[in-house]
Amino acid sequence: VLAGIGDDAAILKPRPGRVILATTDLLAERIHFNLTFTSYRQLGYKAAMSNLSDIAAMGGAPRFLLIALALPPRETPRDVKAIYAGIRAACDPAGVAVVGGDTSASRTDLFLAVMVLGDAAPGAVLRRSGARAGDHLYVTGTLGDAKAGFELLQARKRTNAYLITRHLMPTARLKAARRLADGRLASAAIDVSDGLAGDIRHICEESGVGCLIDARTLPLSPQLLAHAQAHKRDPIAYALSGGEDYELLFTVPPAKVPRVDTLVRLQQLRATAIGVMTPSRQGLRLVGVDGAVGPLTAKGYEHRFG
Amino acid sequence: VLAGIGDDAAILKPRPGRVILATTDLLAERIHFNLTFTSYRQLGYKAAMSNLSDIAAMGGAPRFLLIALALPPRETPRDVKAIYAGIRAACDPAGVAVVGGDTSASRTDLFLAVMVLGDAAPGAVLRRSGARAGDHLYVTGTLGDAKAGFELLQARKRTNAYLITRHLMPTARLKAARRLADGRLASAAIDVSDGLAGDIRHICEESGVGCLIDARTLPLSPQLLAHAQAHKRDPIAYALSGGEDYELLFTVPPAKVPRVDTLVRLQQLRATAIGVMTPSRQGLRLVGVDGAVGPLTAKGYEHRFG
Repeated sequence: VLAGIGDDAAILKPRPGRVILATTDLLAERIHFNLTFTSYRQLGYKAAMSNLSDIAAMGGAPRFLLIALALPPRETPRDVKAIYAGIRAACDPAGVAVVGGDTSASRTDLFLAVMVLGDAAPGAVLRRSGARAGDHLYVTGTLGDAKAGFELLQARKRTNAYLITRHLMPTARLKAARRLADGRLASAAIDVSDGLAGDIRHICEESGVGCLIDARTLPLSPQLLAHAQAHKRDPIAYALSGGEDYELLFTVPPAKVPRVDTLVRLQQLRATAIGVMTPSRQGLRLVGVDGAVGPLTAKGYEHRFG
Repeated sequence: VLAGIGDDAAILKPRPGRVILATTDLLAERIHFNLTFTSYRQLGYKAAMSNLSDIAAMGGAPRFLLIALALPPRETPRDVKAIYAGIRAACDPAGVAVVGGDTSASRTDLFLAVMVLGDAAPGAVLRRSGARAGDHLYVTGTLGDAKAGFELLQARKRTNAYLITRHLMPTARLKAARRLADGRLASAAIDVSDGLAGDIRHICEESGVGCLIDARTLPLSPQLLAHAQAHKRDPIAYALSGGEDYELLFTVPPAKVPRVDTLVRLQQLRATAIGVMTPSRQGLRLVGVDGAVGPLTAKGYEHRFG
């Protein structure tokens, strides 16, 4: 960064030979967040992290963050400071510089527009369109936690701090993304923001392939399993339709599967194999916990319950 | 642009040896714009143009635009198309690629977050902090038109299309910026978005200098003069406090003044010399139309009227 906040634009020095990645999100109060549930610090943290995650999903390293806030009259300087503190808490460990900020007024709701710039080696960029039939499908971390945490917040039950934190303060999988990019291990990637069933659809559509996901292999946290059992819900449905996990969903060509599996065994990559990509005509399919194969829907086979 | 809308992030190829300029603005309905006065197309046009102007004010060339919209329920797909058409109308002639878009919901008001990336030769970047005492001060185009146009809109008088267009569809001074940057002619620059009196203050503060502006030299359009006369107002006050003109205000070191004046005479640069930068201790001063020198205030010497 050559110059940050305080001029008409931030001045950034690109690293030679790298391509630039740019992403933006606009977060609206009462649509994307609810100030009854989130603190200003958590809000800033999550707004930054969801954009860092977009860069990670492209195989890139995030470098710079710009933020624009529209503040309703009730917001105090202290609230704004807390939002910035949250942004910095997400950015600092990732080596991301907060280079620009614009603050203006809003009539009723709070809005945050976040832009993140990153870079990547030209050959290491991960697109949604790179998956081929025969590629293996992996996902980092565990799925469905954020949705369960959101339910707890809505029910005013702060009984499970882990699940609530997974919703309010997600973690972008920057290390995993770097490992995949450095080793040129993945053929396609996306971050799980709409839920596994929705996001795998993006990869399938952009890549022109189908998929066969095995519900029995989906990574579920012990906390999610306990939550689902307590509420008599199907944990697989959380994993399939739960959004905002910000885990990386990625495909690996067969020749590179042994290398990825070795990284996983050595715990240098926290990921789980959950299926395989298929020819497009076979569509999107799910192997249920009973071993039966059916079409993949957002809810999985939740309808078989209750 | 290697990839635009449709992945987690846009992929951009930087031009070797150039620095990157990044700017962002968040525009809120009923704060920055009023849909009673502006069409969706004009809104998109102005949102894009104000960001292009920020890049121009840094001596850069805008390259890429990202847009995020938060749409209240009343907005139709046709409205969104019109916003994008306006954005493209601003970007296409400037060679700026619209590379990313994010659309989400809003409860009540319409919000637009626009980000523009540009680039510049490292030695040609224009900062607010580069002005020195003795530098000459110039401004492109004419001042105060946008404010007069806004008054006409508010009064529901569509009597002067020129002034109204200057408010609704401003023009970023990209050509002038390129000429100044290519010739390394300016020592500092800013775009006039808050009004001349406000924006010169930014240059003076960041550069640690004062200024002496001659009100008799301020460039005023015939349309503004007619408007001011009809409403018995001081045209100089429009020029000093009128915002959103998006003209370039820039300083030129004495050694380069002859070259700038030649460009102006050859009509290769539409700019007017309006004053000189002074030592900081002399503060910000204005020579009035009567030749008397006084402190520069946002309203100029409007108080002498009426």
